[in-house]
Amino acid sequence: MLPTDVLEAAASELTDWQGSGMSVMEVSHRGKDFVAAAAETESLLREVMGVPQDYRVLFLQGGASGQFDAIPMNLTAVGDKANFLNTGQWSAKAIKAARTQGLDVTVLADEAASNYTTTPAQGSFTVDPTAAYFHYTPNETIGGVEFGYVPDAGGVPIVADLSSTILSRPIDVSKYGVIYAGAQKNMGPSGLCVVVVRNDLVGHARPRTPAVWDYKAMAESDSMLNTPPTFGLYLLGRILAWVKDAGGLPAMGERNHAKAAALYSFIDASEYYTNPVALDSRSWMNVTFLQAKPELDKTFVAQASAAGLTNLAGHRSVGGMRASIYNAMPAEGVQALIDFMADFERRNA
Amino acid sequence: MLPTDVLEAAASELTDWQGSGMSVMEVSHRGKDFVAAAAETESLLREVMGVPQDYRVLFLQGGASGQFDAIPMNLTAVGDKANFLNTGQWSAKAIKAARTQGLDVTVLADEAASNYTTTPAQGSFTVDPTAAYFHYTPNETIGGVEFGYVPDAGGVPIVADLSSTILSRPIDVSKYGVIYAGAQKNMGPSGLCVVVVRNDLVGHARPRTPAVWDYKAMAESDSMLNTPPTFGLYLLGRILAWVKDAGGLPAMGERNHAKAAALYSFIDASEYYTNPVALDSRSWMNVTFLQAKPELDKTFVAQASAAGLTNLAGHRSVGGMRASIYNAMPAEGVQALIDFMADFERRNA
Repeated sequence: MLPTDVLEAAASELTDWQGSGMSVMEVSHRGKDFVAAAAETESLLREVMGVPQDYRVLFLQGGASGQFDAIPMNLTAVGDKANFLNTGQWSAKAIKAARTQGLDVTVLADEAASNYTTTPAQGSFTVDPTAAYFHYTPNETIGGVEFGYVPDAGGVPIVADLSSTILSRPIDVSKYGVIYAGAQKNMGPSGLCVVVVRNDLVGHARPRTPAVWDYKAMAESDSMLNTPPTFGLYLLGRILAWVKDAGGLPAMGERNHAKAAALYSFIDASEYYTNPVALDSRSWMNVTFLQAKPELDKTFVAQASAAGLTNLAGHRSVGGMRASIYNAMPAEGVQALIDFMADFERRNA
Repeated sequence: MLPTDVLEAAASELTDWQGSGMSVMEVSHRGKDFVAAAAETESLLREVMGVPQDYRVLFLQGGASGQFDAIPMNLTAVGDKANFLNTGQWSAKAIKAARTQGLDVTVLADEAASNYTTTPAQGSFTVDPTAAYFHYTPNETIGGVEFGYVPDAGGVPIVADLSSTILSRPIDVSKYGVIYAGAQKNMGPSGLCVVVVRNDLVGHARPRTPAVWDYKAMAESDSMLNTPPTFGLYLLGRILAWVKDAGGLPAMGERNHAKAAALYSFIDASEYYTNPVALDSRSWMNVTFLQAKPELDKTFVAQASAAGLTNLAGHRSVGGMRASIYNAMPAEGVQALIDFMADFERRNA
């Protein structure tokens, strides 16, 4: 979901960007206007997220899934150790790719026993100080499971897949070695991946790392070693301006917390709906819920969609329902869902 | 450049795609509407390009530059032989990446002696029958140099970077093992890369090939192993429909040939402008030209831009001017350039 204001502005200038008479998709990415726009996007991202001076911001292609492979390529040699937490399908994919890239992976905690409805308790695992990095997934979109804390990894660089939580609340970038995030949740259209990497982790890529994923090569070229996803960069800039105007990440955090709290409160008060996730691990972004009559799941999703409430089917691997309430979802949208759920319960319970 | 009709249609439905009340950027890529749209895009591409049944069409991220690495990863083992032609900077980058990926590269012809204003004569080189593949760049955008023929590689698979010529005229896909092309010239916005690969070349990826670039994994998932660049896929579908409606690739070819012929004829008739490229190697897409007073190059570009004729500076590595007249450039645009060039000559010669 994208902010309506942003989409309307994008539509209004899709055929004439900044009075150029051209679409932003048509101007040269090496021209001064686009270079300035890309620099402004980076500057806004740094400002909004509070990215410290000693971090680089990279705009890459291939999605967060591409980074599952690119991170080992950039940070490790074959045979190096890496520590992971497994809290669901996205963690598992990152682990699989790290092994594919020849790492000696230790999974410090795996939440299989709870069917991935929990996060490991703070302090319940210890990161190997000889590991090249420690990876976790702060929010699992499928299970709707989220960490309430940033793990302590000693001095080992923390690598985090923030695809579904970036820009959703303030974060302390300085705690991380690498943050990466596909843009399509809170940052705009798919096809753009943001990587924020601490300077000391740049410049160690394996010899066969593809140039378009080599952090050093991309840092040195301002992410323009090849043609970047220009439309995505443009739209990210607009979204960051929208976030800033709305009060920045503190305001986003308050707003997102209130949205999630309203929905979980309704579910908890209901005798018809339940949320399977541990209280300390409930996602602000992806609220999963089950109904007492699971045979009505398809009916629920279809009737909700007819009422303008879309994308509510749970992931095919877990069933049930899932409401993804990213930044662009207004509080009114969450209230409309709650009203629909209450009505559905009255009609079907 | 994008067709005006396509951009206007995209703008009109940017906030409401197919009556969904949402942007195409907001709908789930796993939803039936988007899956149908992506399938329609592939179907249109197959129809318009005449892609044979025994070829797969993949929609990837990372640009053609990503494929410089992904092709060796998918087609070869380290140490395998590959043959290349070097006709300019794009060839050179592909060669460099192939060497980075550990291939034993032989450059069968290098046009350095002509400062990359020529293509090797047909029959002047012989592809090693033990090479894993033969690579060439049918059109070099920087030099404005283009092959007038498809090389004979014996039975060795031909791999071709068609970034700047795809959809510009009919091509015989069956002559190639792999065609790859960044979308941003003739197929829409940057961030999407089309790969057309013969089935027998799928399934041989090296063990550490990133999943998002593994031809087999992407073929088996209909290019949706991860979130694809949804807006790019949508726009490519619209552009393909525009190409089809305009008469398909035969009509594009006639139109592009006429545009290029008009511009080259004007340059050849002029005593002020020259084109440095060999007659048999002149690009239909990128027409380079020099003026008798190179000290006026910046003036030319600035005055042209003020007259609405943009992006005319030659690449920084070669200087001079370059008119990129891709599919979406109408004949009237080329005529406007010719008129401007004639006027500039009158004022400055």
